[in-house]
Amino acid sequence: MPRFALKVEYHGEPFAGWQRQKAQPSVQGAIEEALARLEPGPHRIAAAGRTDAGVHALGQVAHCDLARDWDPFRLSEALNHHLKPLPVAILAAARVDDDWHARFSAIERRYLFRILMRRAPATHDHGRVWRVSQRLDAAAMQRAADRLTGRHDFTTFRSSICQAASPVKTLDALQVEEVAGFTGPEIHFHVRARSFLHNQVRSFVGTLERVGAGAWTADDVQAALEARDRAACGPVCPPQGLYLAGVGYPAPVFG
Amino acid sequence: MPRFALKVEYHGEPFAGWQRQKAQPSVQGAIEEALARLEPGPHRIAAAGRTDAGVHALGQVAHCDLARDWDPFRLSEALNHHLKPLPVAILAAARVDDDWHARFSAIERRYLFRILMRRAPATHDHGRVWRVSQRLDAAAMQRAADRLTGRHDFTTFRSSICQAASPVKTLDALQVEEVAGFTGPEIHFHVRARSFLHNQVRSFVGTLERVGAGAWTADDVQAALEARDRAACGPVCPPQGLYLAGVGYPAPVFG
Repeated sequence: MPRFALKVEYHGEPFAGWQRQKAQPSVQGAIEEALARLEPGPHRIAAAGRTDAGVHALGQVAHCDLARDWDPFRLSEALNHHLKPLPVAILAAARVDDDWHARFSAIERRYLFRILMRRAPATHDHGRVWRVSQRLDAAAMQRAADRLTGRHDFTTFRSSICQAASPVKTLDALQVEEVAGFTGPEIHFHVRARSFLHNQVRSFVGTLERVGAGAWTADDVQAALEARDRAACGPVCPPQGLYLAGVGYPAPVFG
Repeated sequence: MPRFALKVEYHGEPFAGWQRQKAQPSVQGAIEEALARLEPGPHRIAAAGRTDAGVHALGQVAHCDLARDWDPFRLSEALNHHLKPLPVAILAAARVDDDWHARFSAIERRYLFRILMRRAPATHDHGRVWRVSQRLDAAAMQRAADRLTGRHDFTTFRSSICQAASPVKTLDALQVEEVAGFTGPEIHFHVRARSFLHNQVRSFVGTLERVGAGAWTADDVQAALEARDRAACGPVCPPQGLYLAGVGYPAPVFG
């Protein structure tokens, strides 16, 4: 059966997360049902990152095995047709080798986290950002973020239900920038690593927000890291600002 | 009774438009009901621009008369509290003179229209943009837009239900730019005039899109303008990409 890689964008709000669950809507389930409209199922697809409820994707990658040797463009168009009106879109499809795996072949995951800084409630970006009332100091957050990059035991920034074999990971990048958003100033966190622990990005952002607000220092963040203790973490931030921005593979998949 | 100006942001999707209507949700009705939670009503508010169903605002301006001399910041906070969970936010409030009027004192309206250019359906920006499948030529659209600026009889670009006394208006600016959007390349139209005819911006954008796609020339747009005939207009575009971006007054209202 030919194997296809799918580049997937979605808005997380209506879903209980990526992963198929009984009696709850999931992105995986939505795509598997769209596939069943093309070829008799059941279909089981695998993804590079299993995003939590309320988390979005700009460039999730999944793979599926189909009976027919679809033209990739026609496959993406047909899936988008059957996915309507859900906020899930197949941005690209590509034929891949039979041993290529969306999750196990991935060598890099990139996340974006958006904070909107203003008093008034979010309207256009409701469910798409974490809104905070005060202005945050991006430069102070960057200085603290620099303490987290590199290879560390990230036990502090790992949820208690994390199933990873080891808490030791290499964080390749954690960049903090202030941007002029559509409805107010935003802080964007760009985070990059081969793989992440469960809730690692939200634990980073919730902790760094405390730095941006002036409540924590970069030294506090370093002490929290070195404590290797979940209790030392700052507050874990809400999921709505988090986007799986992209996935990297040894060779480009979508041309 | 002290009069207050309100700067209002909203997402148009859940509303039948700005204007209060029987048995249909409206932005005006939502704000009037929030005011009634602060002081006994009925309240009747006036706005600078009565946006249609599905049209958004980044900086609508309205005014209301209240019995109490509210602190403007507390007034906006209280209204935002009562507006939840609707996608309507009071960005600012200000005390104005008794003869100041949100609509009649306004000397400038600014609109933004967003087109998203990509094959895949919109997800994060669904309901917030007009998605078109082909890439549009921004420079060609700007050249055609330049034929529309200035003082003209805009009968061609005016809906048949428009109630304005005259079709002659002065279009101060119509700027076309391509920007890197959150989920793909976008065309932004920035339109500015003292006042507009009904559906004028959507008639402009629908017509200019034909130019961007290569189906119309700038000369075709000029001929359509000079025809002073509604039938000469290009297709009127959908409302979802339209935002009332701001309103100008002789003196700044919100400091």
